[in-house]
Amino acid sequence: MARRAGVPDLVERARRGEHLAVARLISLVEDGADGRGDPGMLREVAAALAPHAGGAHVVGVTGPPGVGKSTSTSALVRALREQGRRVGVLAVDPSSPFSGGALLGDRVRMGEHATDEGVFIRSMATRGQLGGLAWATPQALRVLDAAGCDVVLIETVGVGQSEVDVVRLADTTLVLLAPGMGDGVQAAKAGILEVADVFVVNKADRDGARQTVRDLRHMLTFGDDAGGAGWRPPVLRTVAARGEGMSEVVAAIDEHRVWLDAGGERDRRRLARAEAEIQAIALEQVRARIGDLRGARGLPELARWVVTGRTDPYRAADELVAALGRD
Amino acid sequence: MARRAGVPDLVERARRGEHLAVARLISLVEDGADGRGDPGMLREVAAALAPHAGGAHVVGVTGPPGVGKSTSTSALVRALREQGRRVGVLAVDPSSPFSGGALLGDRVRMGEHATDEGVFIRSMATRGQLGGLAWATPQALRVLDAAGCDVVLIETVGVGQSEVDVVRLADTTLVLLAPGMGDGVQAAKAGILEVADVFVVNKADRDGARQTVRDLRHMLTFGDDAGGAGWRPPVLRTVAARGEGMSEVVAAIDEHRVWLDAGGERDRRRLARAEAEIQAIALEQVRARIGDLRGARGLPELARWVVTGRTDPYRAADELVAALGRD
Repeated sequence: MARRAGVPDLVERARRGEHLAVARLISLVEDGADGRGDPGMLREVAAALAPHAGGAHVVGVTGPPGVGKSTSTSALVRALREQGRRVGVLAVDPSSPFSGGALLGDRVRMGEHATDEGVFIRSMATRGQLGGLAWATPQALRVLDAAGCDVVLIETVGVGQSEVDVVRLADTTLVLLAPGMGDGVQAAKAGILEVADVFVVNKADRDGARQTVRDLRHMLTFGDDAGGAGWRPPVLRTVAARGEGMSEVVAAIDEHRVWLDAGGERDRRRLARAEAEIQAIALEQVRARIGDLRGARGLPELARWVVTGRTDPYRAADELVAALGRD
Repeated sequence: MARRAGVPDLVERARRGEHLAVARLISLVEDGADGRGDPGMLREVAAALAPHAGGAHVVGVTGPPGVGKSTSTSALVRALREQGRRVGVLAVDPSSPFSGGALLGDRVRMGEHATDEGVFIRSMATRGQLGGLAWATPQALRVLDAAGCDVVLIETVGVGQSEVDVVRLADTTLVLLAPGMGDGVQAAKAGILEVADVFVVNKADRDGARQTVRDLRHMLTFGDDAGGAGWRPPVLRTVAARGEGMSEVVAAIDEHRVWLDAGGERDRRRLARAEAEIQAIALEQVRARIGDLRGARGLPELARWVVTGRTDPYRAADELVAALGRD
């Protein structure tokens, strides 16, 4: 029987580009985040990755269902590979209960990249406890980053608020639309207009593509600062199924990357993201510690005081927070 | 110009049953909770009320739209008044942005009780910041409790999860259904079957009432412990618009109250509720303190360390929580 590899060893092997080590690390953070594995594993993997992450450019790929996100992601991978770049793909589906850990499914899904040593593909779906995906995704991203990917694509499969949350992890966000879907209104509703750094009108060989591009450009003149001060999101046309227009998309991503670096915007975004991540983890820690106090001294007695009118819930909460500090 | 009354003075007057003082106190907690007034007012009112609350029996009235919740609440008030009990009503609408502080609207809505000194009616709706209602409702409940109400009815106007949350404040929860609405399935979906202590099939003079009662009873045989160990929710029939069956509903509420007291279940529920309330307030305090750290030392530096790979977000969160304790 093979000895279970330790985290530092796995990280070393992932850095050398070993696909199995990458897959194993992502499984560890998934299991740690959704309650099926050791929650401490999230910490351990994050700690081991910290010195080795930060080099990848993270690109979010989002848009309403049916615009061809999967096809576009696959075509983007091809275009990036033609330039010799190492590419990671996280396909995140917050609305699906199916685990995407299945490498087989990923290979079928992106069959053409299955045997390419320079491509790392992973599907992640909600499993186990709610919210697990939110904890696992940033660490999975760091795994692909540490594995030396030049670009990591995060493709959201589902729709809704969680989709926007996932996209917040990206340096550059592509918003995909397609002709004749009432896209403008849909996109505005989904709140994805504001997060777009690059618009891609896919299926541009279809009727109405020109109109969709015009509508988008018109809308952009109203939101002058969309995408950050000084950056006006371009509106590109692709036919991803035939690979048309993909090199222009790659060029737009690179242009945005240059803009991010030049004005210090990348740094600002990454700092804001790190602050948000630290805060979320800290709040979760506090929540867990309050949970611990529940069974022991503290909370039950305070609740008794509130019920009997000896104190009120606000003063009781003060006591509780003070007790956390003393722990 | 009249001097602005202090909170202790208002509480004294509310305890003597002065309607204006009750209304004023509820406005203070509403304003404090939704960001339009002094957030400290929530604390001040809660502290002043603590010694005087806990006597009222809190009854939640919920159910899908169209079952006649308003009419039933009004009929219940009448039935309780006939027994000389003092009654408070909180009509909570988490889905509406309209402020219900308007006494006029309340009086129109429950016109017949408008001049009754023994009835306190207040509508509360979402206004100002999201979630404000969740903080205001428990304190508004305490105001009516301290005002000497024997029974406080909380009627939810909206639908969805927030509805279920509001009902959690109740000692006894009535779930209203009506014939021919596919109620069983609807109720099961809304998750209100589990929270019901008493089922009321309203509009029982309509076709299908018998079937709805039968369906409910059938469903209840599958969920043997619905409503707590040893209590089997009765299924009653009313025609609230004509006041029919209301005394049976009052009797069922009283029966449930006796059951709650006898087995210590009321105490257990109130303790659990107090624990949840204290926890929520404590977490909110921690969140606010983390927000304070954001602008000052601490968080920005930790974020910088994470971005540069000097530490990982989990260790950074440890630091942040430790900093909270030192404050």
